Amino acid sequence: MDVIKKNWFSESCEMWPGSTFSFEVKKLLHKERSPFQEIQVFDSTSLGRVLVLDGIIQCTQKDEYSYQEMISFLPLCCHRNPEKVLIVGGGDGGVARDVAKHPNVKEIVQVEIDAKVIEVSKKYLPFMAVGFDSKKLTLHVGDGFEFMKNHSHEFDVIITDSSDPIGPAVSLFQENYFSLMKSALKPNGIVCSQAGTYWDNMDLVKNTLNICKNQFPSAAYAITSVPTYPSGSIGFVIGSLEENVKFDNPVREFTREQLNDMDLKYYNTDIHKAAFALPNFVKNVIDA
Amino acid sequence: MDVIKKNWFSESCEMWPGSTFSFEVKKLLHKERSPFQEIQVFDSTSLGRVLVLDGIIQCTQKDEYSYQEMISFLPLCCHRNPEKVLIVGGGDGGVARDVAKHPNVKEIVQVEIDAKVIEVSKKYLPFMAVGFDSKKLTLHVGDGFEFMKNHSHEFDVIITDSSDPIGPAVSLFQENYFSLMKSALKPNGIVCSQAGTYWDNMDLVKNTLNICKNQFPSAAYAITSVPTYPSGSIGFVIGSLEENVKFDNPVREFTREQLNDMDLKYYNTDIHKAAFALPNFVKNVIDA
Repeated sequence: MDVIKKNWFSESCEMWPGSTFSFEVKKLLHKERSPFQEIQVFDSTSLGRVLVLDGIIQCTQKDEYSYQEMISFLPLCCHRNPEKVLIVGGGDGGVARDVAKHPNVKEIVQVEIDAKVIEVSKKYLPFMAVGFDSKKLTLHVGDGFEFMKNHSHEFDVIITDSSDPIGPAVSLFQENYFSLMKSALKPNGIVCSQAGTYWDNMDLVKNTLNICKNQFPSAAYAITSVPTYPSGSIGFVIGSLEENVKFDNPVREFTREQLNDMDLKYYNTDIHKAAFALPNFVKNVIDA
Repeated sequence: MDVIKKNWFSESCEMWPGSTFSFEVKKLLHKERSPFQEIQVFDSTSLGRVLVLDGIIQCTQKDEYSYQEMISFLPLCCHRNPEKVLIVGGGDGGVARDVAKHPNVKEIVQVEIDAKVIEVSKKYLPFMAVGFDSKKLTLHVGDGFEFMKNHSHEFDVIITDSSDPIGPAVSLFQENYFSLMKSALKPNGIVCSQAGTYWDNMDLVKNTLNICKNQFPSAAYAITSVPTYPSGSIGFVIGSLEENVKFDNPVREFTREQLNDMDLKYYNTDIHKAAFALPNFVKNVIDA
């Protein structure tokens, strides 16, 4: 008890009081305050490189791919022909990297609000920032919310890779944001947004899913394992303009060889289906 | 950085160097060294009661049920008629509590090596130790390994609820233990053992699964979410004396109403199926 550890970083956040995850730091590679948030990059002894925004772990080299692959391929594989994709947020480049792997995707537009996150990722997190090199990608620095006001009926899939709903990302969890995404979608379009976990924040899950249900005729919640996030997992809401979409039954499947060729380490069809399985205590709240 | 926190408990273990989970302590309720291990029970600010053995979190009131329900109902629901069940370990009572809920189970025999864990759980962890009150249960204090040498062809299901393979539980991850379990089973019997996670210990997963495959004609690995375990998850190997068992397709299904009546908070048929879905990076190692 009474932890005293030198050279360890501990996450602390009002969203998860009373428990915390810590890692041993090899070196603090970068620290600055951008106009939007405090950015830190660490080299760690057990997790590789780690990106921290406002004191919260955003991704570690050890497990970032499960998050990036799932927030990308869950919506992409529920869409018959996802040619044009909008990414809001995702300043580390990881989602762009994985969206670009899908063979149907021809064009990716990304809007990230914080140029400093992009710059820092390019310098210290090349395994994710490689996404910015994709020829499919057009990158804008700006507010995704504002961007969508001027882009109607343009996208097949919109992925919101945001931080948690404190700080710059608050607006991305609100009804008018989901309404804007709806208007920016082509017919049969699909959205997917980070939405917290039922272990730590059942209200956030229920509220975000309800907002999604209000705006989209089909909506569901899925979850994936990410060991270095609080509760070791992270969830998504997914919504479609089509009716009666069975999100847990993807319209596009890839063989194991194809997945390996695309360098997908986590996502496959079984994992896709499994992500939508919910425990009883969650169903009892969500369906109430 | 440089964590200095009073009244926080931090897990530390050679199995997971370089990262750790910590929780805020309301009160240390109990601390003693038994002949087998150091036992601590905390009251915490965010997780309820917490049992710690040799410095490692065994269960917290917040999330213990996902572990207990899964290690119990995965094997029970793969068996056509699980009347007689052996539990090795499980000194907190949680597995006995959940095994007793299955309507086919008539008789439970439990062998826990450390009487002190049982005693402490009865005093401080009544939400799990309630399992010891079941009329179906016969409880022995002793070595499960030795117990099975004198019990052949007796059990339909054997559940090994052990701590990790350091300290008293090492022998429960070895080939001769799986061989003994095999001889203690009735025809068509099924075993289920805690077996670590692929995020933190791929070698342990692969080795334990290989041992299980050596002894049983059908074997598989499953995983479940437990936020307060390292990596936020824990895995199991499951083996059956029957050939070609589809573990991800349980022979027994319960309705939502039945699950709620049994007070199962986590387990259901969708969750059962999902537990066997493995990421590509795991399949590539396990199948290699």
